[in-house]
Amino acid sequence: MAELSEKAQSLIDQPNFGYLATVNSDGSPQVSPVWVDRRDEHIVINTATGRAKDRNMRREPRIAISVANRENQYEKVDIRGRVVETIGGEEADQHIDLMAKKYMGQDTNPWRQPDEERVLFIIAPERIDEMG
Amino acid sequence: MAELSEKAQSLIDQPNFGYLATVNSDGSPQVSPVWVDRRDEHIVINTATGRAKDRNMRREPRIAISVANRENQYEKVDIRGRVVETIGGEEADQHIDLMAKKYMGQDTNPWRQPDEERVLFIIAPERIDEMG
Repeated sequence: MAELSEKAQSLIDQPNFGYLATVNSDGSPQVSPVWVDRRDEHIVINTATGRAKDRNMRREPRIAISVANRENQYEKVDIRGRVVETIGGEEADQHIDLMAKKYMGQDTNPWRQPDEERVLFIIAPERIDEMG
Repeated sequence: MAELSEKAQSLIDQPNFGYLATVNSDGSPQVSPVWVDRRDEHIVINTATGRAKDRNMRREPRIAISVANRENQYEKVDIRGRVVETIGGEEADQHIDLMAKKYMGQDTNPWRQPDEERVLFIIAPERIDEMG
């Protein structure tokens, strides 16, 4: 497991988007913007069950994510890692509201759907490349 | 081939970064920020030979790219596509300077290395998802 540098931690701790790449079942790549969090040295992504990235990360735990400073996108970190744990239920529900606070300044996620099940993916970084 | 919507064209025509996902030789995903251009309905990425994305796209032509409005990242387009052509030489050299103009307001790419060979990847969009 690679250690998150101070720069990587700082980029993740600010409300910067991550661009998460996963692999589809046909072997092609998928990428989408995500809210991103960390727990110490692990990266945390909160998604809803049934979405492409949820299905992809359950099948293929290897992912890549790029996080750039929203005010200077040349300052960025590219991370390759591996999903080591998934967490659902109340913990994932509470976490998405923390993410809404971080990214939107709102107490709850305004886009939450009533039938949506949230899930946390806990990712161990394996390789980290920084720029800027 | 999917048609680029007006929104997709507009997001690409402004100096917004793309986040390009490719697949590594071991089947894991790779993602990195790129300058992005288009020629009518095709997406154009200019990279240097030998980089991870160059090697990956030559081996596996299926890619994904996400392009968001730099001033409002919730306005974005996610595109899946396929490399249909590569172009090197003078055309790729001239093109990287156009990209430096678009993204940095400079006449030449300030990061150009003397021994660097530029290459254009021409990508046909196959599926387009928009938000915002």
